[in-house]
Amino acid sequence: MNSFWQEKTAMIAHLNEVDQVIGKQLTVKQRKMNEILQDLASSGGKRIRPGLCIIGAGFGSKPIESIYPLAAVLEMLHLATLVHDDIIDDATHRRGALTTQQKYGKDYAVYTGDYIFTKCFEILAENYELHHMKELSKAVSRVCVGEIEQFDGRFKSHTSVKKYLKIVGAKTSALLATSLAVGAYEAGCDERFCKKLGKIGLHVGNAFQIIDDILDYTGDEARVGKTLGNDLKQGYYTLPLIYALRKNDSVLNRLLAADVYDDETIKRIIVRVNELGGVRQAQLLAEKYTIKSLKEISSLPTCQSRDDLEWITKRLLVREH
Amino acid sequence: MNSFWQEKTAMIAHLNEVDQVIGKQLTVKQRKMNEILQDLASSGGKRIRPGLCIIGAGFGSKPIESIYPLAAVLEMLHLATLVHDDIIDDATHRRGALTTQQKYGKDYAVYTGDYIFTKCFEILAENYELHHMKELSKAVSRVCVGEIEQFDGRFKSHTSVKKYLKIVGAKTSALLATSLAVGAYEAGCDERFCKKLGKIGLHVGNAFQIIDDILDYTGDEARVGKTLGNDLKQGYYTLPLIYALRKNDSVLNRLLAADVYDDETIKRIIVRVNELGGVRQAQLLAEKYTIKSLKEISSLPTCQSRDDLEWITKRLLVREH
Repeated sequence: MNSFWQEKTAMIAHLNEVDQVIGKQLTVKQRKMNEILQDLASSGGKRIRPGLCIIGAGFGSKPIESIYPLAAVLEMLHLATLVHDDIIDDATHRRGALTTQQKYGKDYAVYTGDYIFTKCFEILAENYELHHMKELSKAVSRVCVGEIEQFDGRFKSHTSVKKYLKIVGAKTSALLATSLAVGAYEAGCDERFCKKLGKIGLHVGNAFQIIDDILDYTGDEARVGKTLGNDLKQGYYTLPLIYALRKNDSVLNRLLAADVYDDETIKRIIVRVNELGGVRQAQLLAEKYTIKSLKEISSLPTCQSRDDLEWITKRLLVREH
Repeated sequence: MNSFWQEKTAMIAHLNEVDQVIGKQLTVKQRKMNEILQDLASSGGKRIRPGLCIIGAGFGSKPIESIYPLAAVLEMLHLATLVHDDIIDDATHRRGALTTQQKYGKDYAVYTGDYIFTKCFEILAENYELHHMKELSKAVSRVCVGEIEQFDGRFKSHTSVKKYLKIVGAKTSALLATSLAVGAYEAGCDERFCKKLGKIGLHVGNAFQIIDDILDYTGDEARVGKTLGNDLKQGYYTLPLIYALRKNDSVLNRLLAADVYDDETIKRIIVRVNELGGVRQAQLLAEKYTIKSLKEISSLPTCQSRDDLEWITKRLLVREH
């Protein structure tokens, strides 16, 4: 299945089990909806969130099987936000395939996302104590606020690194951090330890999102599985551009002032941002967060999960999609 | 505030408290999102679901104050589905005011709905045991499936009363029934009694939705607060039309076969459905559900809540908006 975790056979076995849970939970009688949900369930993706949840659980003592529904919920929450994101971005492709809204229309996309959200809370209520519900509902609220904040800031060239990181924290890192922390909590780790993992998760999440944003400026379209320069086209000014803007470069400023970003303009902005060192500088910040994470990870008790957490932290930095 | 409950001063006082909770829970730092949420919170509406929740709680013994957050969640879940419904229907007006999507764009509407959904589960997790979470997540899943099923059936003239009632049960009655039942459960009523209330709620919900659909064929636009014939324009063939279609009337068939339903076509369909007795027949079914409900209500223990439940059941039948 999953080329991201290729070397990690034990993790792949766990994630296959999690995928089984997702497929089963997203089975409904209504024919059309079932088609959409199964399409989504099998659409691939790196399964970072369930992976982090399982890594977190490895620090505790409960049998890992009890974690699968929780890990499934974390991926499903992510899937739901993706489906809704694609409505907003009018994205045509995701993970190399047509988006739900492109294939079935925005109408199905809205309700499919809602259904997955609600199903997540149903699974949590059926399988776990209130703790995860509290943590996850808070994390998802933050995702929504982050997405709105990001949307509200479109085409604003006076954005700052601080504001960018605030949005990244809300829309991405919070859920990654929570994935790691609730996994550990469910497996019986104490709250202090879970908080520590959560903190590491925030740094890993920041590095992850920065790399994701860099890939919009450097990735190979076929590999990344989505259109290059897509963020830019939507008016999302991410870190490479924010750094490049600091140079107050007249070429870049002129390009950004265009009324419409056609393919040619997008291409030129991407080239210019690279020339001005925006991508390189963003890469350095991602590395800084990675180093921070690795330092904290080295203080964790020695075990398979610590190795896995170290591995994924490095893996996320060097990925090309 | 609320002209629907005009005669019921005690209920109005409770609902004002619930509105306070809603306003507070929908307060966020992000300026734009806060504007949208507060707009929604104060947009009026009959507050049927929190009203039913409070009526349900009246059958139990807990202080009613402990019910307010739960009642607020029920209205907020409804608000979230409304915001998303309006994206699908491209509705311009709701409750006499511009819809979120019309005023702020579909993008804000998607995330605002998601935020409200998540906030609901957060409030439940903070204030209550798992029971309500299970019941409400199931009810909302049903709403989503019902909405998809309804959307999937657009412009299909071979729909049946049975199918219509199945969709109504999922998209409307389930949440109304749950409102009544969880209110009672939270106030300490036993499960058997809550189930009985839930069953009554389903019948009340069916009558409620049938009347709602009738109002699309008979209502006064200014009063109903939304455009007349709006369901029809979207291709939703509701009960009055389903009954009229049984007459196999050539005029109606020709009108429905039009490629686009312009205002003139809509007007003619509405007139024809009335002429064919579709509205009258739908009214009779709503009355049948109301009578069924009233019969079951009369077997409940005598108390203020029984009176209120009887009152609202009758009130929903005679409303004009």
